[in-house]
Amino acid sequence: MPGYTHLFTPGPTNIPEVVRQSMNLPMEDMRSPTFPDFTLPLFADIKKIFQTETGRVFIYPSSGTGAWEAAITNTLNPGDKVLMSRFGQFSHLWADMAARLGLDAEVIDVEWGAGVPVEAYASRLAADKGHAIKAVFCCHNETATGVTSDIAAVRVALDDAGHPALLFVDGVSSIGSIDFRMDEWGVDCAVSGSQKGFMLPTGLGFLGVSQKALHASKAATMRRCYFSFDDISRANDSGYFPYTPPTQLLRGLRVSIDLLLAEGLPNVFARHRRLAEGVRKAVDAWGLKLCAKEAKWQSDTVSAIVVPDGIDSAEVVRRAYHRYQISLGVGLAKVAGRVFRIGHMGSLNEVMVCGAIAGAELALIDAGVAIKPGSGVGAAIEHFSLTPHHAALAAAA
Amino acid sequence: MPGYTHLFTPGPTNIPEVVRQSMNLPMEDMRSPTFPDFTLPLFADIKKIFQTETGRVFIYPSSGTGAWEAAITNTLNPGDKVLMSRFGQFSHLWADMAARLGLDAEVIDVEWGAGVPVEAYASRLAADKGHAIKAVFCCHNETATGVTSDIAAVRVALDDAGHPALLFVDGVSSIGSIDFRMDEWGVDCAVSGSQKGFMLPTGLGFLGVSQKALHASKAATMRRCYFSFDDISRANDSGYFPYTPPTQLLRGLRVSIDLLLAEGLPNVFARHRRLAEGVRKAVDAWGLKLCAKEAKWQSDTVSAIVVPDGIDSAEVVRRAYHRYQISLGVGLAKVAGRVFRIGHMGSLNEVMVCGAIAGAELALIDAGVAIKPGSGVGAAIEHFSLTPHHAALAAAA
Amino acid sequence: MPGYTHLFTPGPTNIPEVVRQSMNLPMEDMRSPTFPDFTLPLFADIKKIFQTETGRVFIYPSSGTGAWEAAITNTLNPGDKVLMSRFGQFSHLWADMAARLGLDAEVIDVEWGAGVPVEAYASRLAADKGHAIKAVFCCHNETATGVTSDIAAVRVALDDAGHPALLFVDGVSSIGSIDFRMDEWGVDCAVSGSQKGFMLPTGLGFLGVSQKALHASKAATMRRCYFSFDDISRANDSGYFPYTPPTQLLRGLRVSIDLLLAEGLPNVFARHRRLAEGVRKAVDAWGLKLCAKEAKWQSDTVSAIVVPDGIDSAEVVRRAYHRYQISLGVGLAKVAGRVFRIGHMGSLNEVMVCGAIAGAELALIDAGVAIKPGSGVGAAIEHFSLTPHHAALAAAA
Amino acid sequence: MPGYTHLFTPGPTNIPEVVRQSMNLPMEDMRSPTFPDFTLPLFADIKKIFQTETGRVFIYPSSGTGAWEAAITNTLNPGDKVLMSRFGQFSHLWADMAARLGLDAEVIDVEWGAGVPVEAYASRLAADKGHAIKAVFCCHNETATGVTSDIAAVRVALDDAGHPALLFVDGVSSIGSIDFRMDEWGVDCAVSGSQKGFMLPTGLGFLGVSQKALHASKAATMRRCYFSFDDISRANDSGYFPYTPPTQLLRGLRVSIDLLLAEGLPNVFARHRRLAEGVRKAVDAWGLKLCAKEAKWQSDTVSAIVVPDGIDSAEVVRRAYHRYQISLGVGLAKVAGRVFRIGHMGSLNEVMVCGAIAGAELALIDAGVAIKPGSGVGAAIEHFSLTPHHAALAAAA
Repeated sequence: MPGYTHLFTPGPTNIPEVVRQSMNLPMEDMRSPTFPDFTLPLFADIKKIFQTETGRVFIYPSSGTGAWEAAITNTLNPGDKVLMSRFGQFSHLWADMAARLGLDAEVIDVEWGAGVPVEAYASRLAADKGHAIKAVFCCHNETATGVTSDIAAVRVALDDAGHPALLFVDGVSSIGSIDFRMDEWGVDCAVSGSQKGFMLPTGLGFLGVSQKALHASKAATMRRCYFSFDDISRANDSGYFPYTPPTQLLRGLRVSIDLLLAEGLPNVFARHRRLAEGVRKAVDAWGLKLCAKEAKWQSDTVSAIVVPDGIDSAEVVRRAYHRYQISLGVGLAKVAGRVFRIGHMGSLNEVMVCGAIAGAELALIDAGVAIKPGSGVGAAIEHFSLTPHHAALAAAA
Repeated sequence: MPGYTHLFTPGPTNIPEVVRQSMNLPMEDMRSPTFPDFTLPLFADIKKIFQTETGRVFIYPSSGTGAWEAAITNTLNPGDKVLMSRFGQFSHLWADMAARLGLDAEVIDVEWGAGVPVEAYASRLAADKGHAIKAVFCCHNETATGVTSDIAAVRVALDDAGHPALLFVDGVSSIGSIDFRMDEWGVDCAVSGSQKGFMLPTGLGFLGVSQKALHASKAATMRRCYFSFDDISRANDSGYFPYTPPTQLLRGLRVSIDLLLAEGLPNVFARHRRLAEGVRKAVDAWGLKLCAKEAKWQSDTVSAIVVPDGIDSAEVVRRAYHRYQISLGVGLAKVAGRVFRIGHMGSLNEVMVCGAIAGAELALIDAGVAIKPGSGVGAAIEHFSLTPHHAALAAAA
Repeated sequence: MPGYTHLFTPGPTNIPEVVRQSMNLPMEDMRSPTFPDFTLPLFADIKKIFQTETGRVFIYPSSGTGAWEAAITNTLNPGDKVLMSRFGQFSHLWADMAARLGLDAEVIDVEWGAGVPVEAYASRLAADKGHAIKAVFCCHNETATGVTSDIAAVRVALDDAGHPALLFVDGVSSIGSIDFRMDEWGVDCAVSGSQKGFMLPTGLGFLGVSQKALHASKAATMRRCYFSFDDISRANDSGYFPYTPPTQLLRGLRVSIDLLLAEGLPNVFARHRRLAEGVRKAVDAWGLKLCAKEAKWQSDTVSAIVVPDGIDSAEVVRRAYHRYQISLGVGLAKVAGRVFRIGHMGSLNEVMVCGAIAGAELALIDAGVAIKPGSGVGAAIEHFSLTPHHAALAAAA
Repeated sequence: MPGYTHLFTPGPTNIPEVVRQSMNLPMEDMRSPTFPDFTLPLFADIKKIFQTETGRVFIYPSSGTGAWEAAITNTLNPGDKVLMSRFGQFSHLWADMAARLGLDAEVIDVEWGAGVPVEAYASRLAADKGHAIKAVFCCHNETATGVTSDIAAVRVALDDAGHPALLFVDGVSSIGSIDFRMDEWGVDCAVSGSQKGFMLPTGLGFLGVSQKALHASKAATMRRCYFSFDDISRANDSGYFPYTPPTQLLRGLRVSIDLLLAEGLPNVFARHRRLAEGVRKAVDAWGLKLCAKEAKWQSDTVSAIVVPDGIDSAEVVRRAYHRYQISLGVGLAKVAGRVFRIGHMGSLNEVMVCGAIAGAELALIDAGVAIKPGSGVGAAIEHFSLTPHHAALAAAA
């Protein structure tokens, strides 16, 4: 039967029906007198998802990559020294961008499968008595390897060193799915996008900015216009945008934020944890390994799974796609051919995750991997049966 | 996460995306000069799904129940003797309707789990030398018990007896999913509806009628107006309807018929067979039994599964619904509390079926049934891995 | 630019965006445990649109024609005498149905352009001392001629005669748009459908039934099953249906009823009156006549406009459709070729009505009618400018 | 009746139904093996709308403003001298951007209501013997004032001067609606966006780039990453994007391009001309003036209409919005309060334009402007009746 595939990529994610309904609409005038009645509460409520009260969140017509660029160009100056780490395709790309935009990026390379090297950061910051480092960059959840890093610990390292550097976090595949606390962790620029935990189509880049980052932007000399904090701040203050915004996605964002807040962020995070754990039990039952080297790195939004030697993970993904109409994530860059990824982020429940695991089993077996049929799904089902349902957690909360 | 559930009921079934898109539209004028350009080819193409060239298919704004009534009221006379059989909720309801509409229905009761008693029909027809029996009724696929009957054999029985009775078939949950040959089997009235193999919302009742049935309607004296063959024939001949038709569903029907014809009916049937077999392997691996008593009765569109003694199947369905957002079919009437049903009909593939089986496992375990987690899904996956993919069958055809 | 046309037919009508969104959804299980949570309030709220507290409203998967049949077959007996009147295509069709379903219909023919002959009814009822007449039929709004009748006066006639006949009203193109008071007027069967004032796709027939009609159904002997009050009452009482209902349309109905109640029925009626008056001013400015013979007959939901001699109204409609992508209503039966119709019912405002009038002007001029360009639209604009806006009426209410 | 308004802004424009249907879909994997089968033909076909064979068109997840920035940052160097002109809000904003991005912009101010000063450009270019001017900027259609400029003449000026400067054109509100010939006019960077002539939601910025511009980008030293030609060229070459693209809008773009090509660009342009002329006749009949100073400047996609002294045009727009649910364009910047705008761009026909004019009449009268009701609509209808229908033009072509 022809048609669209089942989506288990780590973004874009599945769009809930009520969100989809809300975006099935005619265009509207973004200069209408009532537009601010819609946007101003939206600007207020997206802050709750970033867990910030003191900062603000800009919504750009762009992908998350645009929000990366917005963070850099608005707050830093050409030649500024920044501290970064690289352990997957997305942390790699951000480092690449930093260099291309003229920063003096000190990049610590970490084995793919681990995350932000907090100790190395701490010693580097402690040593930087002159505060040459202007910003510290962290990829909260590396989507390529399924690795989550400890941002709170980076904040501690900064504080312990008494270091004033800005803290930049890529939360594209964590915010709205994995606990992310912008204010508590003192994050200055928090990047996200619409097509992950926000359960929307691609097209909106989100950037949480602290007052410190806003202040830094006043003196920052990098050239920018489209992503300018000044332009968007001024327009947003009255409920408008400096250019025509994607109103359709904004209407969807209203509903997706409502869904997240209705479920409650702690319950959203618990659900992701529970579903992710089911996938991990399956991987274990298959006798395979995650790309994430240690349990502490394991991501609750995406699992990157290493295939046995002699197997091409791209072939697993292709078979899943063509034979079973299921989209899994391919291995990117360094891990191309060696891992495939199951996204378990956004609008998902146990049955969908079991479908994804079953689809992966089918594709793995077809590709010649010797796994016992049902072993993975069975392990997940066992996990889901034995542990409290997230609705119970929600009720207990 | 709130939202609609995963649907594994034996109707309504999942709507393919292209069908859903086609129905997201404004209303149109059903008297427009170009409306027949749309309807006349539609009327021609729906005949292909019924596998009839000599008959015609009426599309009523009604459920399938309306098409049952249309068949009876247009072709029979008050007091007419008809031969029926009853072995599930739907064959039961049709027999009830026949009596209420004034027919003299001779109903053969068969154990639920078996189907049309062909031998009993044959002897009854052979004995009816005076041709008192005006119509023979068969439920091709009893949705309540997951039982498919042998319509071709009923035709043989009629022919062997040289009996002129009309042959009425309820194909609501078979046509478009299980091989149904209106012309070859000499079916005179073939009932179906939009929300099963046609993968549409409820709202259209279909009635395939043979020339013999059309001829019978000329003399039939039962009162009818809304479902009158005369009215709909006359209007349909010029591409219109005798009342305002549900144009939205007609637009969807155009696309769903296109999908079925593009896949090819033999491939559609093979896909249903393969997916159904996966479900049956799962039931077997769970150590449970189907309601269908013998392999020959097993339906390729719905499996009714008997739960162990002491378990309430309604509770299984409720847990599946509330905890896992998956809609399974409840047990109806005589088998209420004793069976639950998995629909595997319409727009489905292996991954969706594995999701349904996994959801059933979760609900069964929660309800206290001792099954090994993953056993059912594993058996299905094994079946899907070892047997040729339906796409291969399609390519070979 | 290809695409669907602008719809100014007297049904189907335009679907408001929120209603359309609500119907863009996957299928759901109509036997789910939570389904009654949705249906029971819906059954209660649709009664508000019929303005009945003591009766109930059945929702059939059918067109309005099905609800006509439901009214007759559930409450009357073969051979029953009924009093009807005929003054347009729809009152004609209902009379035709009554005869075909076996009633002894006394039909008073009235010139097309007038409505229910209340005085004739009154004298006929007064003369019927033996209460041979079992039901009185009225077409509240004859869609073919744009004529509204006085149902309250018919009730007075019945009461004055002390006559116990049932009162049947076709409110297909009035209920939800023109004031219709089921309880106050003592209507026993009130017929409507989804595609008019309810602003939905075709596919639901509505039948409001009084307790008197429900009581009559207990003894009524006409054969029925699909439309049986008993079956639908019993199932509806617990929130379900006797067959698979069109859940998609029910979801839409929930929203359309919410819209009507939020606007307030008196405001809905005032809006229709105001917009209709604009159309009537335009017709007057064109120098054309309405089919409605007197002001008291003029319908607030549809205007049937007589074209000058020598002009074919069907040609006007065809030109409008092909050149300007606007669907006007054709003249039906007796007035075919002589009238065209503008529907002004449902989700409409001044701008849309002006578009309809402008489109009609364009088509009339193209067809050779000598009208001054802008005269009709100008008259409507003048009316809309000089009279209080319906929002003002709403605020004042 | 609550709901979305009628949209007659000069962008966003109305979305045709088939485009809207195509975007009502689940998300898909932008790294799927079949994604290039979709994108590569799309990249080829969008070039046809830009009328370029030798260039390429980049599709950015951004508004048109992003494409402005992409043009500048990829092809020019900090401090480069560029020649610009300013005669409305959008030409003003582009000049502002050029300065902020570090260009040495020589901006010729022109009275609002006129367009690109070709003679001034010509003499300036002729005088620039040293070719200090690296690029010449033109706003093809100034959306704020409804003024279209003569790009072909600018090309002549460049050629006459033998000047090698790049030619940048803002075609946001012209491309796909007004004849725009990228190759023939030697345009090097042509900016557009999804929400105007492309009849899509906002969210895609389009940039047509010539081989000369691509070549210039190799040596250009402005910092850029998100909008980098290199990154998007490399990814697009294989059918992918350097970040997650808005697949939903790309699916819609496929359909909107198909619509434009099916109608035929010359017919699309003729339709816009005819509809615009209707609006201009209406303005004339009202006794009002366009912002465009001379007939040669009049835009076929938007008319900016000057209100009489003593009237606040913002009040006209507000009344139209609140009382008649119609969105007109407000006056921007210098002409705020003095003009309002009617967009007549994208998916529109005569009836819709008459609705817009009627809505404007209603709002003007309400705001106290003394115009004869129907005068404007009448003039438009007269124009539409007397001139060949664009379908006739299409047939004759």
